[in-house]
Amino acid sequence: MDGGLKPMDAEQLRECAHKMVDFIADYYKNIESFPVLSQVQPGYLRELLPDSAPACPESLQDVLDDVQNKILPGVTHWQSPEYFAYFPSNSSVAGFLGEMLSAGINMVGFSWITSPAATELEMIVLDWLAKALNLPDEFLSTGKGGGVIQGTASEAVLVVLLAARDKVLTRLGKDAIGKLVGYSSDQTHSAVLKACKIAGIHPENCRVLKTDASSEYALSPESLSDAISQDIASGLIPFFLCATVGTTSSTAVDPLPALGKISNSNGLWFHVDAAYAGSACICPEFRHYIDGVEEATSFNMNAHKWFLTNFDCSALWVKDRSALVQSLSTNPEFLQNKASQGNLVVDYKDWQIPLGRRFRSLKLWMVLRLYGLENLQAYIRNHIELARKFEELVKLDPRFEVAARRNFSLVCFRLLPTHQNNLESANRLNRELLDAVNSTGKLFISHTVLSNKYVLRFAVGAPLTEERHVVAAWTTLQEKASGLLRNSQE
Amino acid sequence: MDGGLKPMDAEQLRECAHKMVDFIADYYKNIESFPVLSQVQPGYLRELLPDSAPACPESLQDVLDDVQNKILPGVTHWQSPEYFAYFPSNSSVAGFLGEMLSAGINMVGFSWITSPAATELEMIVLDWLAKALNLPDEFLSTGKGGGVIQGTASEAVLVVLLAARDKVLTRLGKDAIGKLVGYSSDQTHSAVLKACKIAGIHPENCRVLKTDASSEYALSPESLSDAISQDIASGLIPFFLCATVGTTSSTAVDPLPALGKISNSNGLWFHVDAAYAGSACICPEFRHYIDGVEEATSFNMNAHKWFLTNFDCSALWVKDRSALVQSLSTNPEFLQNKASQGNLVVDYKDWQIPLGRRFRSLKLWMVLRLYGLENLQAYIRNHIELARKFEELVKLDPRFEVAARRNFSLVCFRLLPTHQNNLESANRLNRELLDAVNSTGKLFISHTVLSNKYVLRFAVGAPLTEERHVVAAWTTLQEKASGLLRNSQE
Repeated sequence: MDGGLKPMDAEQLRECAHKMVDFIADYYKNIESFPVLSQVQPGYLRELLPDSAPACPESLQDVLDDVQNKILPGVTHWQSPEYFAYFPSNSSVAGFLGEMLSAGINMVGFSWITSPAATELEMIVLDWLAKALNLPDEFLSTGKGGGVIQGTASEAVLVVLLAARDKVLTRLGKDAIGKLVGYSSDQTHSAVLKACKIAGIHPENCRVLKTDASSEYALSPESLSDAISQDIASGLIPFFLCATVGTTSSTAVDPLPALGKISNSNGLWFHVDAAYAGSACICPEFRHYIDGVEEATSFNMNAHKWFLTNFDCSALWVKDRSALVQSLSTNPEFLQNKASQGNLVVDYKDWQIPLGRRFRSLKLWMVLRLYGLENLQAYIRNHIELARKFEELVKLDPRFEVAARRNFSLVCFRLLPTHQNNLESANRLNRELLDAVNSTGKLFISHTVLSNKYVLRFAVGAPLTEERHVVAAWTTLQEKASGLLRNSQE
Repeated sequence: MDGGLKPMDAEQLRECAHKMVDFIADYYKNIESFPVLSQVQPGYLRELLPDSAPACPESLQDVLDDVQNKILPGVTHWQSPEYFAYFPSNSSVAGFLGEMLSAGINMVGFSWITSPAATELEMIVLDWLAKALNLPDEFLSTGKGGGVIQGTASEAVLVVLLAARDKVLTRLGKDAIGKLVGYSSDQTHSAVLKACKIAGIHPENCRVLKTDASSEYALSPESLSDAISQDIASGLIPFFLCATVGTTSSTAVDPLPALGKISNSNGLWFHVDAAYAGSACICPEFRHYIDGVEEATSFNMNAHKWFLTNFDCSALWVKDRSALVQSLSTNPEFLQNKASQGNLVVDYKDWQIPLGRRFRSLKLWMVLRLYGLENLQAYIRNHIELARKFEELVKLDPRFEVAARRNFSLVCFRLLPTHQNNLESANRLNRELLDAVNSTGKLFISHTVLSNKYVLRFAVGAPLTEERHVVAAWTTLQEKASGLLRNSQE
């Protein structure tokens, strides 16, 4: 960066950004050459970097060399075709271009006036996505509802929980907070308990209802109904239910129609978290998984998971946007303006925790336009088909079992106990298998525990994953299993 | 996008992203040709876009044409050199490159294992920045403290307020929540009251202490001390103070040393919000503004405001990271791993509201390296000098007054009342002047109210702003003022 500080010179931007494009394109070209799970040790980077920021400028080439030699070894490659851990976090050409454009414009869209296009495109694109998911019209921005992009599903559940809390407290007075009871299952994402804690809901008033294999880890309407009745009898105030379509552990699907009816007849806010599986519901044959969403007060899916929209982009819809605004609005003098004061516009600052916000709708808009819904459906179907094939491979090997019903693109499986060993040693064996395959760097998988069994999770969904990667991953798993079983029998 | 869906093909990425680079570089080349404040009417975009997402792919050229013709007219150009509203939100070549790289890698760094480099670079770079700001060593990650990148100052204040709340509630029991009292001034950012509300602090226990012109709108230690004494006498529990260095309205500076001593002797969590002005404190001659930060429990500055790091990048430091973790940690089975369980690493998920997080340290690292501290100091000094020159221009025109002390790069000013008019009509005149200049599209300024006076805010800080832009803005202001004054006297 010669010639003094020109921090936003258009031609310097052009020159440097073209270099960065090639760096990133080369990264994708070579992505299979990296270990999927980073193999560095804690503290590795501090030894490689100086103790303080430089006084004088360094060159872009020096920085890129450091990215290559010091940063990338410490990256776990979520975009690798051999990434099968957690859930996917899709990047795509369209999503990446949207991020570039958003960073290029770099506006802070807290109120409509700070960039009308940012607010309006977000409303429009979330209406598009709601229609693609066949959500009830009440979730569209053309009525009393609407969609908003949150950073993550954690923030989505927090804002609706706050809206639900404040609706009740407005009616009953602030001291009722100690009596509010929220409901979820033991398969619900930890974000819900965290949201309760943030909101000041008493930990002992957070009902985590047990599920088991008999319902494929779905929340039972009876247990919800019983819990609500007991709580009411104890003088408590049920106020919130989070149901999940596609749980993190095993992609269980809670029965929305029955849960929704119980929620509504008891005046609960009914939130549906379909962070991962929501994307599949753009395919008509998978749409039935969210049947019952018409009972929901709010609905969430993460376009940044399995919908080719770079992180972060969590889509949240509510039927009554005024409940969010009543809970989360602020109106300091320095943000007042005619459009806001005249109630002519949506100011998304009042739908979220932070004030500032990025132009995230651009990337979702570009994904929808540059790919089109038919291609996006084909993309989802392909991953589900690859997961089905992996499940078949597991079933063909008698040393393994499939450990939960596969609904989408996640396969839960494990090495079966051999006749000599019990549950505990089987669990240890599966833990060792996880470590063994992940430390090859050839693939990255994760785990969960279901009914006390340590279970391996194989989540298909990276944009570059093809059948050959799934087959190769299975081969590595089989080889490592053979080695472990051999050792355990010696 | 021909030939079926290849959502992350390296060569398609290369080709499309090079096009996007040129689009964005051209945007910066022509940025002065746009009206700074978008002149569209509410609802303009819905008429220009279809009702639903396309079934089939569209071309990148079509999308870019729509960006040019439909989106950009609805953008308020925060990067324009004539943007003087709110506070700046800097973009830069380095910041933009960092965003590109982060979007390219697109990992979700909730735990160390999900990309060790993301966690470790963040720790290192926030140590660099802490040293550049000459923060006490207790804020460094090498001890018990450390830095973390939050999205915004709103999230920064929320997480420390939650940590402060839970420290007290752990000691006194959860029912004490109704007695907790938080303190700030009437100049403190609205984010603090919002954070209190989110955390379940009773609204009537949020003390908003009055300031006035006599202290240049700084919080008076006496008023804090009195309020704390009264609250203790009433059986309430003071727990949190937010002081500000560089308030949003007028860049007032609260007296940290005195406030800190009162906080500490009463056991309050003392948070210092220097979201905007913190950047200036890398210059030795401005460092005194945060003298007293050694008394603080936590400190925040937004690198995305005036430090050339694209939005979002809010740097938060705490002296005791365990307080954050105790309040915000979750540990579900599916996220457990050896490094985390062994307590060998930092998992930033436990320092923030959301679970997922982007690789935001890359952009801050690139800003520090590609510019170097000396250039960054020169950048800040230049803006402060431009603001000083604008202030001189205001002072030379007897129709105007400077309405608050200028500490950094914000000038608060207003048209004086003429002898015929009172405060109210002077306020109306200034409102009209704001509308008049903003609707020219030639510049964008904002406003506030100080001691009941409607005051115009002229905030220098966009990366492309030069002296000629400041002078031209003043000329437009003078012209519009002359017109309004002529009309008001007819």
